[in-house]
Amino acid sequence: MRAFAHPDQSRHQPQFFLQRGQVRPHFEVAARAEALLAALQGMKADIAEPDLVAPEALLAVHSADYIAFLSEAAAEWAALPEKGPEVVANMHPSPEMLAQGATLSRPIIGRTGWFTADTACPIGPGTWQSILSAASCALAAAQDVVGGGSAYALARPPGHHAYAARAGGHCYVNNSALAAQALRAAGAARVAIIDIDAHHGNGTQGIFWERPDVLTLSVHGDPAAYYPWYVGHAGERGSGPGAGFNRNFPLPQGTGDDRWLEAVAAAIEEAQRFGAEALVIPLGFDASEHEPLSFLRVTADGFARAAEGLSALGLPTVIVQEGGYNVQMMGHLLERFLLSWQN
Amino acid sequence: MRAFAHPDQSRHQPQFFLQRGQVRPHFEVAARAEALLAALQGMKADIAEPDLVAPEALLAVHSADYIAFLSEAAAEWAALPEKGPEVVANMHPSPEMLAQGATLSRPIIGRTGWFTADTACPIGPGTWQSILSAASCALAAAQDVVGGGSAYALARPPGHHAYAARAGGHCYVNNSALAAQALRAAGAARVAIIDIDAHHGNGTQGIFWERPDVLTLSVHGDPAAYYPWYVGHAGERGSGPGAGFNRNFPLPQGTGDDRWLEAVAAAIEEAQRFGAEALVIPLGFDASEHEPLSFLRVTADGFARAAEGLSALGLPTVIVQEGGYNVQMMGHLLERFLLSWQN
Repeated sequence: MRAFAHPDQSRHQPQFFLQRGQVRPHFEVAARAEALLAALQGMKADIAEPDLVAPEALLAVHSADYIAFLSEAAAEWAALPEKGPEVVANMHPSPEMLAQGATLSRPIIGRTGWFTADTACPIGPGTWQSILSAASCALAAAQDVVGGGSAYALARPPGHHAYAARAGGHCYVNNSALAAQALRAAGAARVAIIDIDAHHGNGTQGIFWERPDVLTLSVHGDPAAYYPWYVGHAGERGSGPGAGFNRNFPLPQGTGDDRWLEAVAAAIEEAQRFGAEALVIPLGFDASEHEPLSFLRVTADGFARAAEGLSALGLPTVIVQEGGYNVQMMGHLLERFLLSWQN
Repeated sequence: MRAFAHPDQSRHQPQFFLQRGQVRPHFEVAARAEALLAALQGMKADIAEPDLVAPEALLAVHSADYIAFLSEAAAEWAALPEKGPEVVANMHPSPEMLAQGATLSRPIIGRTGWFTADTACPIGPGTWQSILSAASCALAAAQDVVGGGSAYALARPPGHHAYAARAGGHCYVNNSALAAQALRAAGAARVAIIDIDAHHGNGTQGIFWERPDVLTLSVHGDPAAYYPWYVGHAGERGSGPGAGFNRNFPLPQGTGDDRWLEAVAAAIEEAQRFGAEALVIPLGFDASEHEPLSFLRVTADGFARAAEGLSALGLPTVIVQEGGYNVQMMGHLLERFLLSWQN
């Protein structure tokens, strides 16, 4: 299988992670990308380094003011007095504010709160280049499968928690959504996204919420007890023209292979019923039983069987890397997944 | 003038304050209450310690699930593994989530994000008792002026950034809103609130946004460059039955006495035109030129002249302490304010 990777993905070096009231070392580290690349090399995968896309390419699924924020934030932050080394929000517009005429404030503190959802998406000096390079891999992979076949995009930082105009949960630009939109633009009438990261693909859901041409499906830990906490429930089905074109499969804590694979199979069935002409798989390894913040208990065999089932759809497919934070394990899991892929 | 204070207000000892991407010592410290109490004692004020109200008293302006969260949060947080010493949110439901069926998650991490707006309202072991005691002072002061006259409520933590169901900006329960509602309940047909804290009284605005019986007026630093960043603009006027019953007077950075007092005078005029029968003054000293995070440049004389103007309304008035963080100065500013009060 063709794989796309880019060295700039290691330039994003987030330090800040607020968890349970304490600042902890961030675990979305560059070593993740390096471990995945090493696995690809070990598999003798056909690895290509794409040209970086222009920032305008991100406007396919993001707003212009949001992309301007991402590209300008680090430099504007650096000019603040008494700041930390990374752009981090300490507040956001609340629902009451939004209902009462909230207005975007241009200074960087105002923009940061406006365009982020949480404290898990710090922006440092190298973040923007990594964002661009991750998106470039996803877009190159989409281009690669237009005539058929499958491709893997090593994408860091991940993307599936990013909305059209909001970062969150380690994500900035929604690489999977970009890939889906590129497949649409290249002629696929209906694109299905089957997200098997352990966390709900809330950003992707949000981007395509009102659209019937991209079916968003997500298999994940129950948000009643797991990030992103507030969405990802089975009742969220899309709205307007998109009503019925979103499906969530929340799973209880401790779910292992069998029930997880049942949910993946149900998502595959939905994609078939939809008549998908192309497929995007936001792939996280954080559903692994060996994950540090383990909520689900999927084994390496489970990931391999998921690959078999998903590839049996026989569709042009872009596999986009999302989460997974066990640096020791994830290379092995990627290898099992890709070697089990059938087309 | 009668003043109300309570020793439990010192039990709230917040440690966590995320500012510009760094955790800094919190400056809403117990020493603030102690400095204000010392000033009252120095003035030979008539200081009373109210009985603590029952939590149900807070439901006059807050939702029951929010008050349950505030009272239960510290104990539930203490049972979490690997937590910091205080309840602090690291994410909140975003607008997209709220538009797509967001649901409150009961575990404490879910409730914390749901019921807070920012990282500036940590909840520690003593916070709830301080909240209750601050509210008790505000409610006792309101009761005290029902027959006429004025009273001062030493209230810590402050309250004016708290919405009906959301903490934020060092605030948990909206003491000023409680006082206004108590005056309404005691028979005042129309209550005006003139907020002269340096920051927009956004929570108070929110609580009375749709009500014509409580006129909310706020004189503050322009939110385009200052907390709360997104609301506090002149165009926010209330809605539904409350349309026209909210007025904001945002002032540019560096504004000194003259222009600040003009805005206060404009608010006074609005309260007169409204036919207010009672008045609440959320009083912050953070508009002082000596404030650590100074945005406005009001002098001690400025505060004294504001007191003269406000007291000339001749209304039953509750003065409720809000912000101000220069512990060395605030006792003096309170003394100047209260000694200039004319009724």
